[in-house]
Amino acid sequence: MLESLLYPESIALIGASRQTGKVGHEILVNLLEGGFAGQIVPVNPSADEVLGLKCLHDLTAHDGSVDLTVIAAPTAFVEEAVKSAISARTKAIVVVTAGFGELGAAGTEMQSFIARLCADSGVRLLGPNCLGVINTDHRMNASFSKRMPKRGGISVLSQSGAVCTAMLDWAVARGLGLAKVVSIGNKADLNECDFLSAFVDDEQTKVIVGYLENITCGDEFIKVACRAASAKPLVLLRAGVTSAGMRAASAHTGHIAGHDIAYAAAFKRAGVIRAESFDALFDYAAALSMQPLPKGDRVAIITNAGGPAVMAADAVEQSGMKVAALNRDSATTLKQELPSAAIISNPIDVLGDADPQRYATAVKAAQRDDAVDSIIVILTPHSMTRPAETARAIAACSSREKPMLAVFLGSADAMSERKELVDCSMPDYPSPERAVAALRAMFGYATWLSQPARVVTRFPVNRNRVDRIISRHQKTNQVQMGEVQAKEILRAYDFNVPDGQVANSADEAAEIAQRITFPVVMKVVSPDILHKSDVGGIKLNISSAEEVRDTFDLLTLRVGRRAPDARLQGIYVEKMCVHGLQVVLGMTYDPQFGPMLMFGLGGTFVDILKDVSCYLAPITADEAMQMLSETRSYALLRGSRGQADIDISAITGALQRISQLATDFPQIAELNIDPYIVGSPGTEPMAVDARITLTADPYPPSQADSGK
Amino acid sequence: MLESLLYPESIALIGASRQTGKVGHEILVNLLEGGFAGQIVPVNPSADEVLGLKCLHDLTAHDGSVDLTVIAAPTAFVEEAVKSAISARTKAIVVVTAGFGELGAAGTEMQSFIARLCADSGVRLLGPNCLGVINTDHRMNASFSKRMPKRGGISVLSQSGAVCTAMLDWAVARGLGLAKVVSIGNKADLNECDFLSAFVDDEQTKVIVGYLENITCGDEFIKVACRAASAKPLVLLRAGVTSAGMRAASAHTGHIAGHDIAYAAAFKRAGVIRAESFDALFDYAAALSMQPLPKGDRVAIITNAGGPAVMAADAVEQSGMKVAALNRDSATTLKQELPSAAIISNPIDVLGDADPQRYATAVKAAQRDDAVDSIIVILTPHSMTRPAETARAIAACSSREKPMLAVFLGSADAMSERKELVDCSMPDYPSPERAVAALRAMFGYATWLSQPARVVTRFPVNRNRVDRIISRHQKTNQVQMGEVQAKEILRAYDFNVPDGQVANSADEAAEIAQRITFPVVMKVVSPDILHKSDVGGIKLNISSAEEVRDTFDLLTLRVGRRAPDARLQGIYVEKMCVHGLQVVLGMTYDPQFGPMLMFGLGGTFVDILKDVSCYLAPITADEAMQMLSETRSYALLRGSRGQADIDISAITGALQRISQLATDFPQIAELNIDPYIVGSPGTEPMAVDARITLTADPYPPSQADSGK
Repeated sequence: MLESLLYPESIALIGASRQTGKVGHEILVNLLEGGFAGQIVPVNPSADEVLGLKCLHDLTAHDGSVDLTVIAAPTAFVEEAVKSAISARTKAIVVVTAGFGELGAAGTEMQSFIARLCADSGVRLLGPNCLGVINTDHRMNASFSKRMPKRGGISVLSQSGAVCTAMLDWAVARGLGLAKVVSIGNKADLNECDFLSAFVDDEQTKVIVGYLENITCGDEFIKVACRAASAKPLVLLRAGVTSAGMRAASAHTGHIAGHDIAYAAAFKRAGVIRAESFDALFDYAAALSMQPLPKGDRVAIITNAGGPAVMAADAVEQSGMKVAALNRDSATTLKQELPSAAIISNPIDVLGDADPQRYATAVKAAQRDDAVDSIIVILTPHSMTRPAETARAIAACSSREKPMLAVFLGSADAMSERKELVDCSMPDYPSPERAVAALRAMFGYATWLSQPARVVTRFPVNRNRVDRIISRHQKTNQVQMGEVQAKEILRAYDFNVPDGQVANSADEAAEIAQRITFPVVMKVVSPDILHKSDVGGIKLNISSAEEVRDTFDLLTLRVGRRAPDARLQGIYVEKMCVHGLQVVLGMTYDPQFGPMLMFGLGGTFVDILKDVSCYLAPITADEAMQMLSETRSYALLRGSRGQADIDISAITGALQRISQLATDFPQIAELNIDPYIVGSPGTEPMAVDARITLTADPYPPSQADSGK
Repeated sequence: MLESLLYPESIALIGASRQTGKVGHEILVNLLEGGFAGQIVPVNPSADEVLGLKCLHDLTAHDGSVDLTVIAAPTAFVEEAVKSAISARTKAIVVVTAGFGELGAAGTEMQSFIARLCADSGVRLLGPNCLGVINTDHRMNASFSKRMPKRGGISVLSQSGAVCTAMLDWAVARGLGLAKVVSIGNKADLNECDFLSAFVDDEQTKVIVGYLENITCGDEFIKVACRAASAKPLVLLRAGVTSAGMRAASAHTGHIAGHDIAYAAAFKRAGVIRAESFDALFDYAAALSMQPLPKGDRVAIITNAGGPAVMAADAVEQSGMKVAALNRDSATTLKQELPSAAIISNPIDVLGDADPQRYATAVKAAQRDDAVDSIIVILTPHSMTRPAETARAIAACSSREKPMLAVFLGSADAMSERKELVDCSMPDYPSPERAVAALRAMFGYATWLSQPARVVTRFPVNRNRVDRIISRHQKTNQVQMGEVQAKEILRAYDFNVPDGQVANSADEAAEIAQRITFPVVMKVVSPDILHKSDVGGIKLNISSAEEVRDTFDLLTLRVGRRAPDARLQGIYVEKMCVHGLQVVLGMTYDPQFGPMLMFGLGGTFVDILKDVSCYLAPITADEAMQMLSETRSYALLRGSRGQADIDISAITGALQRISQLATDFPQIAELNIDPYIVGSPGTEPMAVDARITLTADPYPPSQADSGK
């Protein structure tokens, strides 16, 4: 689909300049030096020739069509340039020029207008405000980056030109190859999803890496990212995750991105490998593009020095992986073949003066050992070490079945051996910690890949009933639903809620209480009172008919005094629940990614420790279980230290039914069950308090395309 | 004190070799190439000349004394070499040769013997199994590292030769200067404390960095590290922090180090800046050696590209520092002097094509702005950027009052501007995250430096009473104290414990209960029953005399049945406490660092979330408060969400009294108060349950020298 952009046969450059340092000059230099084999058509109203090429004053003067037009003209002339490109029957346009959406409303309007011009003519637009596009497979550097990387398997997409530049620089410095590099700029038309799609289908691309601050369309992103990650590793760095970062991102893009918790949930769902830092982005890309994925979490460490091996062992354990316990055969082999002073446990210390052969012996043993899933090879240079030969010797032992990562310390004069390592497809790290982090990312991705197909269970529920309750409530023009209605909805989705009924008189309240048996709870019912306890509108643990009557009067009088304008619809009399563990179940409708479920232990755990997990709906049974086990407080649920066992399935089932409710009814903007009380298996869990907020718009736009 | 080792006038090298690649050859090459100006005396039984120098067959043949003898002879000849060095009246010896303590018991014995030989003659010994020693101030490279760094202010001490090598390599590659580099090896005599002391007094040394796996003497370390950190920054990387890392460290050093939690507490107390990774060690050293410390946590970010600035803002907020809100004057200046498209909030975006002048404008504004404490300058290279000039322009604006860190992206061809940055004393980082981490380390150290002098409060207590209780208990030859005695000790140190008394009959129990008023708790008292609840030996909430009598019989019978061999000393009848927040207070005697205090919220917080803080005794009132505020659950103590306020001073006071008890009585190996119940201010806190374990040895060795 993006053939004309990535593999054009002819390229026009509007704004081609004779002046060194000008963007329109650098792009032309890059096209020429990169070795682009197709036709190049420079356009500049005031030049007849640039860099030895004939230059047109206007693209409309061009004889025939061009596949791709790159526009580097000043901002004020971009619109005209786009028009001339369209009339020259161009198929794709890259606007490199800045000064659009990133500057505010006027710029956004300009760029939307240009995007519409393109769309009306079936032309795809990259940018504006971008570095351009590079395709090593086509020897095309249509960007103003100075660097042309060699051909390779890593494709890059980035919302920041600076990150593209850094990535190019890194690849060239390390001798790594890249495939496609796309700077997506302001995303007036083409965005991350378009290029993710293109990279999935691109045979040259083995690994996709990207930098994003915001995502244009959440639903589509999840679909395409999931497809991408199923086919090849997708590593993304997302910045703008803190409030300071969000403000900074918004200041330079004009976009306000959603909360990172939703992005994190989307990445998790889609199998995206998330890089937490700039270093990590490069580190992970190198490992993933050069080495196979590990089949497990047991790491062998081979070293010629103690200190770095201790650091590696620390990092492995801290990452949640394991320092492998070598099997007996390996120990025997190593004992026979290594010097007696060598350490043959793991880390395997081949000693400071180890030659390539000794490293090879240790690597072979680890390769053969079925208790080892991956290998880290550490080399500290001394007068006796021969790093380049060692690199070749190690690489020669690779069966390509277990990932092998190198930590060759000593950066100063090690360029030649580093090149050697790259030539042997061994990724190399400046510290043990960074090698382990890359390995951990590979292991996490391998785990995601090996998950069974996602099957979302659908529970038998009374959907029509919820439809009626919501429709009825929407007529009130209030988004906030009361507890009574929220609980009716939950009941229709098979939640247990405490027995209860609204009373309109003290006598009626007493009757209800006697029917549902004591003790009871009484709460005011009013669409105008959101926080009932703030007006003293809740009373717990009422255990006689007389107390019920008194409480009815007390609550009614209190509301009259403390919230005189509130419409009181009665007093809710409800069976009191006391036993079990309190958890919080929730859902919020994320503007980007749709319904997002939340789980946490009640009280302190949610309020103070923020120990919650969030997943995007719809969730599977496995994912519901993961939501529980991801919290730090999970051990409490499993029942330790003599506490009673908790009915875990009551919680995972509830989360799945909330997931179903949220996907069935996108009108629900927010749902909160706090507390949901769960006891030991066999007891009835109970949604003790609940709140639902509807969207202000009765038919949210995402409803139409949420047919996942 | 280490003058002869660091500034020798003459050096003998036993094991000097003519063969390239041999350690004894490389050291001689390094001494010569490093430019050592004193006398060099090579010794080799089978050579008359090495590298143009006359070679002795035996050091005893040397005419006159030598200050320093470096021994690189094979392991079997080291003892003889040491003897000859001593007879040549050498003042210090470095044994580079390996094959000693790191290989096991026989090696340890050998190295101890050599150390005794030296000690008996008043000779100091470095090593064995080390890289050697470098002193740039003396143009001395008495090591087998290939690298001789330039003169500078960073001194290095390392338990791993590999880390020394990496540090040297890094310094040379980055053009940074070092002062002294000492590889401490097996520490048969000289250890980290000796060199910390030497570096504190060394005028050349501005920053001390080190790598350690274990510490030889905890008490001394804290004293000397504290003195060092008060004078100059001390950055340490400690490896072997996980169980896998500890095993790896023990395999290659033969030492078993203590738990990292004690090291962490010691580092915190001593003001050590802890590096969490290899990268961090270098990154922090660079910033600390080149820039002043920040006076606060407000960071200005100056950039020519959006993406990296967003990453920097994220990193600042995640580190707990703040992205500064610039003051009005800065905004006005920036608006006037920068192009209109520039972003003049913080991060300040001077735009992609920024020239050195534009950077200088922004830097000057941030330097002047009193709402800014530190500055990060990010530069992404484009065709228009002039990195080297920009580096000079930025550095020229520095008032040396606020730290300024650079992030010049693009590593490939940036060596020249990196050199420029180093020449301007601007530390430079490959990613925004790493610059921010270095800044955070500086800020943490500045905060430690600005703390008031430590004053430990001493409370009036009944020390004699505790002395008697402990002496009495020691006669039983049991280390474990019962609850009753533990509470007697606590009472003597002014803790409230519930009223209670041991009963020897049902009637006596009923009498006691009536006196202390109901409800009461009853517990079996036996030196042989550690976990009373395991035998059903506790009963709570007893509210009548009859129930007390029944319980007395029940508990007595149960012990007879379930623990027939246990000596039952009666049944403890105690007032039951119910109200308040449960916290856990503890102390364990760390073999390295002495008494270490622990605080955590009761139950789940300690058991499941491991949300505890640990400080070394004695603690000050401020430190007691820090112990509380460092826990994640601190918000709970402050009383949020309508919970009653907690009497914080009841907890900090208790921690200080435990601190006093632990320093007064090193015989106490472990103390645990769980729960300690605290209510709102004005109520009485209560040590509800307590356990004390004594050391097996009644006079632990550390008692003698714990007179801090």
